Amino acid sequence: MAITVVGSVAYDSIETPAGRRERCLGGAATYFSLAASFFCDVRVIAVVGEDFGPEQEAVFKKRNVDTRGIEHTAGKSFFWEGSYLENLNEAKTHNTELNVFAAFNPQLPDVYRDSEFLFLANIDPVLQRRVREQMPDVKLVAGDTMNYWINDHRPALLEVLKGLDILLINDTETRVLGANKNLVKAAQAVMAMGPRILVVKHGEYGATLFHHSGPKGKSAEHTFRAPALPLEEVVDPTGAGDSFAGGFFGYLASQKELTPGSFRRAMFYGSTMGSFACEQFGTERLQQLSRAEIDERFNLFRELTHLD
Amino acid sequence: MAITVVGSVAYDSIETPAGRRERCLGGAATYFSLAASFFCDVRVIAVVGEDFGPEQEAVFKKRNVDTRGIEHTAGKSFFWEGSYLENLNEAKTHNTELNVFAAFNPQLPDVYRDSEFLFLANIDPVLQRRVREQMPDVKLVAGDTMNYWINDHRPALLEVLKGLDILLINDTETRVLGANKNLVKAAQAVMAMGPRILVVKHGEYGATLFHHSGPKGKSAEHTFRAPALPLEEVVDPTGAGDSFAGGFFGYLASQKELTPGSFRRAMFYGSTMGSFACEQFGTERLQQLSRAEIDERFNLFRELTHLD
Repeated sequence: MAITVVGSVAYDSIETPAGRRERCLGGAATYFSLAASFFCDVRVIAVVGEDFGPEQEAVFKKRNVDTRGIEHTAGKSFFWEGSYLENLNEAKTHNTELNVFAAFNPQLPDVYRDSEFLFLANIDPVLQRRVREQMPDVKLVAGDTMNYWINDHRPALLEVLKGLDILLINDTETRVLGANKNLVKAAQAVMAMGPRILVVKHGEYGATLFHHSGPKGKSAEHTFRAPALPLEEVVDPTGAGDSFAGGFFGYLASQKELTPGSFRRAMFYGSTMGSFACEQFGTERLQQLSRAEIDERFNLFRELTHLD
Repeated sequence: MAITVVGSVAYDSIETPAGRRERCLGGAATYFSLAASFFCDVRVIAVVGEDFGPEQEAVFKKRNVDTRGIEHTAGKSFFWEGSYLENLNEAKTHNTELNVFAAFNPQLPDVYRDSEFLFLANIDPVLQRRVREQMPDVKLVAGDTMNYWINDHRPALLEVLKGLDILLINDTETRVLGANKNLVKAAQAVMAMGPRILVVKHGEYGATLFHHSGPKGKSAEHTFRAPALPLEEVVDPTGAGDSFAGGFFGYLASQKELTPGSFRRAMFYGSTMGSFACEQFGTERLQQLSRAEIDERFNLFRELTHLD
C-alpha cells in the first residue's frame, strides 16, 4: 500500500558535539519518506525552491519515493539552522526561513489519489487540513505537530486533530496540548480531541502508544512501550522523530490487516528507524541503510526488552 | 536466601500535589526491606531513636523482616522533609536531620552472618564500607548512592564501588559519577570503577541494566531495558528507587542460579515494586501489598512491552 506525506523538504545547517554540517538535505517529509520507503510506497507533497536540484531529487529516487507532488517554484527552499551543543534531546533554533513555504498551497496529484495512508508531517495546520480535505476516504491518517502550532495556532490545530486517527508528538507537546503535567492524563485529554491513538515520543527513552479506551477503560491495558537503543554516540538527532514516524507508519502501511500486534511491531520499527537517523548527520544514515540492517536492529530491540 | 541491608530507617514529611503527610515511616532501608520481603528473607542494619516504637517495628514484623540489627539509641531518628510540587521526578529537600545517624557505627549481628546477599542502601559511603568489610564472603553485593556522596565524598565512595557487584543509581548520578553526558559512555566509566553491572533508574521511563563488557564488547548486546508503568496518578514518588532496588535484588536472592534471564526478570520485578510504591504515601502501598498483586502487575509489564 502507499502513503502520501505532506511536509517540509528543506535545507538544514546543524551543529552538534560531533561537528557541523551546512545546508544538508532535511525536512520532516524527507526523513519520513526515506524511513517509510523501506516498508511501502511513499509519495511526497512539498514545495522546494531553485536550490533543490537533481542531486537532492536523486536521494528520493534512489529510495523509489514518488516526487511528482513536489512543487518547484521561484525562490529558496525552507531553511532551518539549529544546534544541540548543550542538550542532545532538544534543538536550539538559530534561524528559520520559510521561503517558498510561505505561499505554499499543497495540491494532491491525481496519481496520489489512491493512497490508502496519509501522513501530515509537522507544518502549518492550515496546510495539513487542506491536504486532509483532498483525501477524505483514506484508510488511516496520522500526523505530527510542534509546540509553536499548539501554543499559537491552537484553533487551526484542533480542526486537524478531529481528522486524525493517530497523532505522534513528544512528552512536552503532549503535556502542553493536553494541559496536564501527568502524561497519562494529558494523553487522554489529547485523544479526546480526535486521534484514537497517541504515540508519545520520549527521545532516548523510547515511545509510548496510548489507545483511547473510553471513560471507563483502564488506560494501562491499552498502552504499549517501545524502548530506544542506548547509543554510545548520537551524532545528530535531527529528524529522529520524523524517522520514527516513517518506520511506524510505513510498517503499518505494509500490513494487510491492522491488529494490535501490527501496532506493537510498528512501534519497534519506529524506534529502529529513529535510532539509525541519529547515527550520522542529516539523512546520511537513512540513505545508506538496507532492509537487512533494519531487521537486525529490530531483533536487537527485542533482545533489549524481552524477558525470554 | 537472605539479604542483609544497611541504610536509613527514618521519618519523612512529604508534600506532593496529592497532599501532605507528617513524619511517616520512611528511609531507604525501610522501602528496600518491605519490597524485597515479598521474595526472600530480609535482615536490616540501621539505627533509630526513641521515637521508633512498637507501631513502626510492627511494619517490619508483619513482612517478616528481621530487625535484630536495628540499634535503638537515645535521641531522634533520621528525619527528612521534602516536596515534589513542581516536579514529581525530583524531590526538593527542605530539611534533613541526621540525628542518631550522625554517630552510627553499624554492627553486623552474628545471626546475619550467613546472608548470601548484601545491599548497601544510600548512606555515607564510610558506613557502607564498614558493613561490606564485615561481610567479605557474600555471594552478591549491590548498592545505591546519591549526588551528595558523588560530589563531596568521592574518595570514600570510590572505595565502596570497588567492592560492589551491582550499583543502582539514576541518570543524573550516572552522568555525574561517570563524568560524561552520554549515558552509555558514563555507564562504562562507572563500571570501570568496580561494579560489573550498573542499573540506571530513569524514573517514569523505567530502567536500563548495563553489563560490563570489556574494552572491545558491544555494550548494546549486554544491555536490558525495563519500562515503568504509565501511572495516571503518582501520589508520592518517595522510595520508588529503593523499592525498585528491593524488588530487583529480592528477586535475584530468590533464584537458585543467576542466569541472564534472572536479571531480566529482576528488572521487571524492580519496576513492578517501584510502581506500587508511588501509588500511596510513604510505605502505605507496600504494607498492604500481596504477592498475587505483584505477579499480576509483572504480567502487565510484559504486556506493556512484549511484541507477542
